[in-house]
Amino acid sequence: MLDLMQDEVFRAFSTYALVVILKTMIMAPLTAFYRFKRGSFANEEDVAFKSAEERKKLLRPNPDVERVRRCHLNDLENVVPFVLVGLFYALSGPQLSTALLHFRIFAGCRIFHTISYIGAFPQPCRALSFFAGVGATVSMAYHVLSKVFVL
Amino acid sequence: MLDLMQDEVFRAFSTYALVVILKTMIMAPLTAFYRFKRGSFANEEDVAFKSAEERKKLLRPNPDVERVRRCHLNDLENVVPFVLVGLFYALSGPQLSTALLHFRIFAGCRIFHTISYIGAFPQPCRALSFFAGVGATVSMAYHVLSKVFVL
Amino acid sequence: MLDLMQDEVFRAFSTYALVVILKTMIMAPLTAFYRFKRGSFANEEDVAFKSAEERKKLLRPNPDVERVRRCHLNDLENVVPFVLVGLFYALSGPQLSTALLHFRIFAGCRIFHTISYIGAFPQPCRALSFFAGVGATVSMAYHVLSKVFVL
Repeated sequence: MLDLMQDEVFRAFSTYALVVILKTMIMAPLTAFYRFKRGSFANEEDVAFKSAEERKKLLRPNPDVERVRRCHLNDLENVVPFVLVGLFYALSGPQLSTALLHFRIFAGCRIFHTISYIGAFPQPCRALSFFAGVGATVSMAYHVLSKVFVL
Repeated sequence: MLDLMQDEVFRAFSTYALVVILKTMIMAPLTAFYRFKRGSFANEEDVAFKSAEERKKLLRPNPDVERVRRCHLNDLENVVPFVLVGLFYALSGPQLSTALLHFRIFAGCRIFHTISYIGAFPQPCRALSFFAGVGATVSMAYHVLSKVFVL
Repeated sequence: MLDLMQDEVFRAFSTYALVVILKTMIMAPLTAFYRFKRGSFANEEDVAFKSAEERKKLLRPNPDVERVRRCHLNDLENVVPFVLVGLFYALSGPQLSTALLHFRIFAGCRIFHTISYIGAFPQPCRALSFFAGVGATVSMAYHVLSKVFVL
């Protein structure tokens, strides 16, 4: 194993980064699940064995499928910046306790964000978990920029 | 060159990561190509020199353009997690042969996925290449989590 | 701080990567701002306190909101590859001046791209800034591949 992986903060970061990445990846089979359940597909070849009339019906967008897709895109927009910013953060030598606090808040918020998005929880459930996640990422970015700044 | 780049697994990972990232980036000019070929644009300013009537026609979505865009988004949803998970994987010291197997399966699957998506190949071409790619990423994530796990 | 962060090129890369990631993240609140300003929402629960008639009106897509969302997606499609390719590039030991040139061109282009997209500047403002950004990323990828290539 390389030296980097001996670092306690980097190990913790790897764990949390993998958790949120895997959480994001689950959205793809979840979309497929809703596509089959609701009978709403995006491509002609996905409904090739159906009659022409049924095909037209199966290619219409469905609000539940679109909801899962928006949730997936929102994950991409937030989880990817977290992992990239977190990489610089973990390399910039923060305290383990501070780092864990950031990672835990972000991971918790994103898991709650997905549940409230898919479950259509009343606002501000989704909005608050979104902004708390963004806050964790921005706080890490600020920490890195305050230590390394070469423009 | 930094020490990290001396590591054989990391060099192999860099190569395959760049191949799939460049493959993803090709989708943008491909979208532009289909936009011009099919006459379907997304922004008012892209069709500024046309007559009002023609403009309205050129701003309608086209199924072929939408197909390339879905393929591009699917790449983002899969290639980015692969590169991020692969980074931790390459740092966690796997065997070169095992690592190469993962990288080759993923890269091969994603290239075949793009061809079957754009070419509208009959299912399960696209589905199988999608799931094999996901499998490679999940397998790498499992390997990392089994070695470093700090929650 | 870990050894990696002592490297001048890596420090410069961290700075520019964080700048473009934060720029991408700004698109989310900007989308929210346009959603409220134009009265166009995506989810039922976001307009729960309105009357049934008003709700229907507020759930219609709006061209300005869609423009910001396209700009956000375009950022994801370009900024994420830049940061990932740049990571390998920074590790492959380029000259500081060459590296800074790449980072500055990319960051400048993406900031100008966002301004011209949101402001609906006449073409080829958006197209040129897009292709110059892609050029910087591809040039870095070429540099890495010419140094480390293990297939």
